[in-house]
Amino acid sequence: MTTATTPLRVGFIGLGIMGRSMAGHLLAAGHELHVFNRSPGKADALAARGAHRRDGPGSVAAASDVVVTMVGFPADVEAIYLGPDGIVARANPDALLIDMTTSSPELARRIAAAAAARGLAALDAPVSGGDVGAREAKLSIMVGGDAVAFERALPLLKTMGTSVVRQGGPGAGQHTKMCNQIVIASTLIGVCEGLAYARRAGLDAATVLQSIGGGAAGGFQLNNLGPRILAGDFAPGFFVEHFLKDLGIALQEAGRMRLDLPGLAMAQRFHSELVAQGHGRDGTQALFLRYGA
Amino acid sequence: MTTATTPLRVGFIGLGIMGRSMAGHLLAAGHELHVFNRSPGKADALAARGAHRRDGPGSVAAASDVVVTMVGFPADVEAIYLGPDGIVARANPDALLIDMTTSSPELARRIAAAAAARGLAALDAPVSGGDVGAREAKLSIMVGGDAVAFERALPLLKTMGTSVVRQGGPGAGQHTKMCNQIVIASTLIGVCEGLAYARRAGLDAATVLQSIGGGAAGGFQLNNLGPRILAGDFAPGFFVEHFLKDLGIALQEAGRMRLDLPGLAMAQRFHSELVAQGHGRDGTQALFLRYGA
Repeated sequence: MTTATTPLRVGFIGLGIMGRSMAGHLLAAGHELHVFNRSPGKADALAARGAHRRDGPGSVAAASDVVVTMVGFPADVEAIYLGPDGIVARANPDALLIDMTTSSPELARRIAAAAAARGLAALDAPVSGGDVGAREAKLSIMVGGDAVAFERALPLLKTMGTSVVRQGGPGAGQHTKMCNQIVIASTLIGVCEGLAYARRAGLDAATVLQSIGGGAAGGFQLNNLGPRILAGDFAPGFFVEHFLKDLGIALQEAGRMRLDLPGLAMAQRFHSELVAQGHGRDGTQALFLRYGA
Repeated sequence: MTTATTPLRVGFIGLGIMGRSMAGHLLAAGHELHVFNRSPGKADALAARGAHRRDGPGSVAAASDVVVTMVGFPADVEAIYLGPDGIVARANPDALLIDMTTSSPELARRIAAAAAARGLAALDAPVSGGDVGAREAKLSIMVGGDAVAFERALPLLKTMGTSVVRQGGPGAGQHTKMCNQIVIASTLIGVCEGLAYARRAGLDAATVLQSIGGGAAGGFQLNNLGPRILAGDFAPGFFVEHFLKDLGIALQEAGRMRLDLPGLAMAQRFHSELVAQGHGRDGTQALFLRYGA
């Protein structure tokens, strides 16, 4: 049994914008870090700080007590966990596996079942808070999995986030993240439409933001993305293509539950159009462009 | 020219939930108050505090230096301002007219023109902040009209709100309020869909709110209406039927501008269905009911 103060052998797979900050916090907390990334250059900075490079998911797992993953798409998650030479196959006895990618609840349950069949514990623990939250260790971490594994993971997760909440059994973390993305999906439509209207009506949209940002329309999306939209700044805080992936998962899960979510469906279609138009690597606020305002 | 400290003869028409609080602040600030409401009982409390009852809009206007109105629908606004025995016809020379109803920008421009033809100043000054904002004099007030009239109105408006911003000429206050409602329209869809998903996925929705309320999905709608939705509390903070009116105005104006706002159109349809189902006098969070979760 691990405790808050024991240095662990921690594997970390996926060193993108979010992952490299998160892995850095684990290293700073004194853990022995074993890393792998598909583009090896992204491991350079961590290696310079003492992290050990590994040549694949299996090799990371074999070197670690806890394996943390933060990759792109559910297909990547499935490959690194369940593939040949994958994490589940190569993990040490009693290892703890934590997938922090936003991925499918159904896949999270399959990984938990495959892990359990080998006596391993697996958690799904997607995050919200973006690149800034990752850098400042202020993520909101939504966890699914069994309560004992959650307690074991808690000290590690607290080095990366300020809100770490167990939402239920396997898949519950992913389901909670879907709730988060569903709220954002329609909220962002409202933000873009409100600002498009402001522009088209000939108002000074920055002055409009001043009036409406502090009231019943106010929130993270309006107050953070609104000024970027008005500045014509579509640089990514969060990629359109990753948001589209999340919305697709949410729609699929809602379909399974026979829950009709027309706002979500509309948002998914709009972001799909954005990707088709070449905006996949812009930030989600690029949705504003569709309104031509 | 009036100043901040001169007691004025102020007329106030429309003493509903919002109006009666707002009129009370004017009375408390030392102004001589002349009131009229279609259902006269709503004037009782203010009359007991010294307000003078008048028998119609024209009679209020004849007794006042400044006339403030806060009624229900654009048709009401049009009748009290432009009708026979209306405010514009009966107002004193140099009177200042301030409509705080959420109404049509086009009507605000017509009233300003009719007022100007008689040498009167008119402002459109709709508010955001709900019953609580009105009670606590913390409204956000969005003003359209000429700059001199705005300066003249400012001391009075500051007795009712904390954010008082001139957004441009006649109609600009109403346009800004439309931006506010457009943002809220889709945001509320997102909030209801996210919570419906949470319920249907078998999560504890209150615990989900704990994870997502402080992050990128967070905002006034989620954080204020979310807990009411989960408690099954659909009592009105803001009536569905009034919101539907606002969304209708916004859609009509967007149509004039040839601006396609599909999120707004969806929200307008959903609230129209709610009204048809008898939920017009529920709070806007009753939108959650359509998801059957």
